[in-house]
Amino acid sequence: MKDNKILREFDYLRKQTKKQAYGDDTGKVISNVYSESLEFLNKAIKQNLKSKVEGKEFFSYSYSGKSSRAINVQLFKPDFPQWELLCKALNDGHVINTSKDQINKIIYSLAISFCASIDLIKSGDQKTPGTFFEYLIAFFVAWRTGVQPQNHIPLPNYEGKPTNLPTDLIFDLGTGKAKFHIPVKTSSRERSIMLWAHQRLLDGIYGTGRFIGAPVLLAENKTNKTSKEVVEICLPEQWLVYQMHIAKLARIYYLDPPQAYLNLSDRGSSLVVKPFSEFFFEWSELAGTK
Amino acid sequence: MKDNKILREFDYLRKQTKKQAYGDDTGKVISNVYSESLEFLNKAIKQNLKSKVEGKEFFSYSYSGKSSRAINVQLFKPDFPQWELLCKALNDGHVINTSKDQINKIIYSLAISFCASIDLIKSGDQKTPGTFFEYLIAFFVAWRTGVQPQNHIPLPNYEGKPTNLPTDLIFDLGTGKAKFHIPVKTSSRERSIMLWAHQRLLDGIYGTGRFIGAPVLLAENKTNKTSKEVVEICLPEQWLVYQMHIAKLARIYYLDPPQAYLNLSDRGSSLVVKPFSEFFFEWSELAGTK
Repeated sequence: MKDNKILREFDYLRKQTKKQAYGDDTGKVISNVYSESLEFLNKAIKQNLKSKVEGKEFFSYSYSGKSSRAINVQLFKPDFPQWELLCKALNDGHVINTSKDQINKIIYSLAISFCASIDLIKSGDQKTPGTFFEYLIAFFVAWRTGVQPQNHIPLPNYEGKPTNLPTDLIFDLGTGKAKFHIPVKTSSRERSIMLWAHQRLLDGIYGTGRFIGAPVLLAENKTNKTSKEVVEICLPEQWLVYQMHIAKLARIYYLDPPQAYLNLSDRGSSLVVKPFSEFFFEWSELAGTK
Repeated sequence: MKDNKILREFDYLRKQTKKQAYGDDTGKVISNVYSESLEFLNKAIKQNLKSKVEGKEFFSYSYSGKSSRAINVQLFKPDFPQWELLCKALNDGHVINTSKDQINKIIYSLAISFCASIDLIKSGDQKTPGTFFEYLIAFFVAWRTGVQPQNHIPLPNYEGKPTNLPTDLIFDLGTGKAKFHIPVKTSSRERSIMLWAHQRLLDGIYGTGRFIGAPVLLAENKTNKTSKEVVEICLPEQWLVYQMHIAKLARIYYLDPPQAYLNLSDRGSSLVVKPFSEFFFEWSELAGTK
């Protein structure tokens, strides 16, 4: 599989993202990953899954004995020209005429086609899809905010050795301006508390609220291999406790948001979960630079 | 592998632990798991590994094409009569004549022989070794403190639904008395921040310091499958930051403690890392009930 075209393009993306997370050139490499993934998935067979999630339908791809993760039928609308239009809009000075709903579908389709391809090409590889998803979200956030992300911050030193603290993606808009703290994960599962714990570190080290915490997640579903049933695993009550006792996150964005989390806003919680496409329209308000 | 003797005994242990985490009966089931594991490992082949950890040597078992995790040569001294003596000592009113060093070896040998067996019997199963290790540590802590662990606490309710918060092991010595918060993991890896985050939750909900945080870990080594080199992955600088900015843990115990963490005490940190055997002798001091 070393000469697999998708993995080769992904490798270009890795190099390109290090140079610049956003911009035309990076967009082109993402385009290549996308088109190679779609071409590969054309060879795979679609298989319906039994959705146990109200209002959502799922299928998976299968190929040479392997099955991909569950794919949300309503969100998966691979449409290459639409993706290119979005890229162009981002390039042409940030005027976006695509609807929020449409943007979410474009990004979901792109993300999930790569992840599903890797599920079929490799065995038990969670890292490659996770890394690609991080590059993809970094691409959009960096393009929208105009800054390259960092993945560490200097640790103010009192007694210990001077050191850097590895972090999730940090987008620093400049001195005196907003700093976004954006962990990117394909799902949170039983590790969701880490999202708040990393925010707490930044709050503790640099001052509460200096960094705007806004994790981006792909989905929270799980497929039973035998019964082919898809469930969403959500812990809304625990999330409320994390938001109260560990740190305040400004947003949690999803490409395929679970209804249980979207409902949290209705409960007067400071925790607001939204589709990721909302970021394109509210980021400057969040940054206080509108 | 369904009729595997080790897994069958492990299943008995699961049931017995739910009834009572400690005591003679539970000790006997652990004995059975231990002897079955040792019997199985006798059929496996020992393979030397290249230690990149100063002062430690490692080997692994291999069996029908699979390799076990790395085993610390100095700590692995399977000695069934010694284990039975320790059990008897615990049973006979808590007078322990076994040295700390010896206790650590007894528990390490027991834990690692089960974990290594599962590595060889199953593929990529991290959960079964993790669960066994939790039962084993619960057994000792429960026996020493005389209380059955809980794995959830009620969440004081203001506006939300009344709910329980799932927790790591909690040993509540009674009203007005100490409560130990003991996460048990075979390694912390990139998830170590969760140890502090869970402590922070308890501090936030019930008051700082009400729960004595003392995670127990097995080891922190990692074997490169190709080169057979064993390294320890430690993040002492980050741990100091967690201890400063997230919550205070009273102890972190290890069966195979990395030197990088043992050194933390010398740096005047409130974070004290020790071999787990120390718990047997200092728990009542920690609990303030000496």
